Amino acid sequence: MEFDLIHRYFKTPFGGLAQANPDTVLFGIGDDCATLRLAPDFHLFTSTDTLVEGVHFFSDDPPRVTGWKALASNLSDLAASGASPLGFTLNLSLPEIDENWLAGFSAGLLDIATRFNCPLVGGDTTSAGSNPLKTLSITVFGQAPASHLGFNRAHAKIGEEVWLSGTPGLARLGLLLEYQRRGRLEQLCKGNELPQVQALLAAMPAQLRQIAVSQLGMPVPRIELGLQLRGLASACLDLSDGLSGDLAHISSASEVSAILFQSSLESMWRKLWPEIDQQANAAGLLKILLEQTLAGGDDFELCWTAHPNRHDAIQSLKAGLHCVGVIEPGSGIWLQSQGASRERVSSCSFNHFAEIQN
Amino acid sequence: MEFDLIHRYFKTPFGGLAQANPDTVLFGIGDDCATLRLAPDFHLFTSTDTLVEGVHFFSDDPPRVTGWKALASNLSDLAASGASPLGFTLNLSLPEIDENWLAGFSAGLLDIATRFNCPLVGGDTTSAGSNPLKTLSITVFGQAPASHLGFNRAHAKIGEEVWLSGTPGLARLGLLLEYQRRGRLEQLCKGNELPQVQALLAAMPAQLRQIAVSQLGMPVPRIELGLQLRGLASACLDLSDGLSGDLAHISSASEVSAILFQSSLESMWRKLWPEIDQQANAAGLLKILLEQTLAGGDDFELCWTAHPNRHDAIQSLKAGLHCVGVIEPGSGIWLQSQGASRERVSSCSFNHFAEIQN
Repeated sequence: MEFDLIHRYFKTPFGGLAQANPDTVLFGIGDDCATLRLAPDFHLFTSTDTLVEGVHFFSDDPPRVTGWKALASNLSDLAASGASPLGFTLNLSLPEIDENWLAGFSAGLLDIATRFNCPLVGGDTTSAGSNPLKTLSITVFGQAPASHLGFNRAHAKIGEEVWLSGTPGLARLGLLLEYQRRGRLEQLCKGNELPQVQALLAAMPAQLRQIAVSQLGMPVPRIELGLQLRGLASACLDLSDGLSGDLAHISSASEVSAILFQSSLESMWRKLWPEIDQQANAAGLLKILLEQTLAGGDDFELCWTAHPNRHDAIQSLKAGLHCVGVIEPGSGIWLQSQGASRERVSSCSFNHFAEIQN
Repeated sequence: MEFDLIHRYFKTPFGGLAQANPDTVLFGIGDDCATLRLAPDFHLFTSTDTLVEGVHFFSDDPPRVTGWKALASNLSDLAASGASPLGFTLNLSLPEIDENWLAGFSAGLLDIATRFNCPLVGGDTTSAGSNPLKTLSITVFGQAPASHLGFNRAHAKIGEEVWLSGTPGLARLGLLLEYQRRGRLEQLCKGNELPQVQALLAAMPAQLRQIAVSQLGMPVPRIELGLQLRGLASACLDLSDGLSGDLAHISSASEVSAILFQSSLESMWRKLWPEIDQQANAAGLLKILLEQTLAGGDDFELCWTAHPNRHDAIQSLKAGLHCVGVIEPGSGIWLQSQGASRERVSSCSFNHFAEIQN
């Protein structure tokens, strides 16, 4: 039965994909181990994540979206290390064999795996026992030349600039829209936040709503950018827990402080929402957008530091890269407003256990 | 919180272990990716397994045993491929933070990881949401020289001998003893089997009981044997689902039949239980033991095929290796009795979903 499931939903398309990489995938699904060949003088990079139904994805999410996002979040870790994908393994713990879900899930997984040339090379499916919810784990493998050892989060240096790809916070807007659609918005907002968030969502242009929902459900891992940043970036990570929480990992490991410029973050949002300044309460809306950037997670955009003499080289890599801050002596994350006053940003990355215990 | 958990239970000891492998583990726990260096001209071997509480381990198993076995089953896949361990990742999905369980589990995991020089290099802990049971996934990485591509299960050839390490079936005896101890033996035995199994368990010497329980809870992956079999074995796999079910993977992939000699399997058991022939119903007991070998799982011993001209080289590797059969044209698994009659063995490997649905 387990073999049947793999053959039916995962082996046929991905077997073809693995066969499209005969120089890398020497043996894929079906033996005790998968056997992968790295390029000569390349190192192995690996990352793993678990997603639990109801915690990391909605039970009624389109399974295609769940499949896409499961691999996207792992590929994003490779991107943050400047590694290129080799393949991945999948573990599925299922309360029942739900053919509709498996068909959609495998289609979403196939889609992103094909797009990033990252074949499924092994895994298992098992009964969830008395667990009523699906649990899935993905482990991804990548490689980079031995001369590139990743972008260690302890490598940020004083005087370096802080950069972002995309517009972190968008996924949080997508989440707010999804909760609003389900009539559960108040679950995400503390009492006095709710009217402000409702005003923001009401003001958002239709196209921006679409972008936000897509950023939440089908984020695009920044693999190509990660490869381009080799030799340019010092510290780098992907934003899964929100800018303030993730950047705090860099500032803590590097024993420095990170100063974020409010004006730069507002410019970032204005590029995506140029009409915002015509809104009655533009300053208030921008403030809430900034809060989503600082505290919202799941964007899977990259955040990195780089010497200022790399500024032009980075800016020319592609559109949508934003220099938003600087590394200074000290500790913690600080938001600097136009008036030059600084406010310490509390780290508020997402804590699954805290959420459960509340 | 998640970082705390990793630091408290997993990072300190394993960080030390990773630091003991500075040439292999360039970066371990704490960054987006772990970075591993393979030896020059070596390939990567990887395998992954999920264990669900209540399905793959008892809720009241000593957590130390669960930790040991979780990594043992993955290391066993490396052994069956002739690969040496590099490291592993761990995913834990937990309904609550159970300090006692985490302390025991990490101790068992540390024990076997240290013994096989296989450091924890990454992973995550997450809330299980509404799931009441723990789920854990382990992905293990190993390496072998490019000249050794593993022991593909499609590589068994007609005329080759079938070999076993250890005494497969022992873990099933351990499971029967565990269920008996819990007063639930009838859950494992169909109606007419029960009295026979009870007679077998009653006849087992105390030392054999201990060996059986240890084989179930703390199996030793045959890593060293797997390395020794490079160049000697053709097809190889580890016995996780029972001899008949696992050998069927070889016979099917290689398009051959496998003949098992009843006398050889009985000799294997007699080495472990020399006094069995003094029992009143020795033939009946041996028959039940054979059934455990054919259908019982979770031994994590190796089963391989090899050309007869390798017989002496294999026999001299170590004690406890048994030549028990031969590969012939045809299909399926057959048991040949002393009287030369052959009986087809039905494949009866363990099916988690079937068990649930019954």
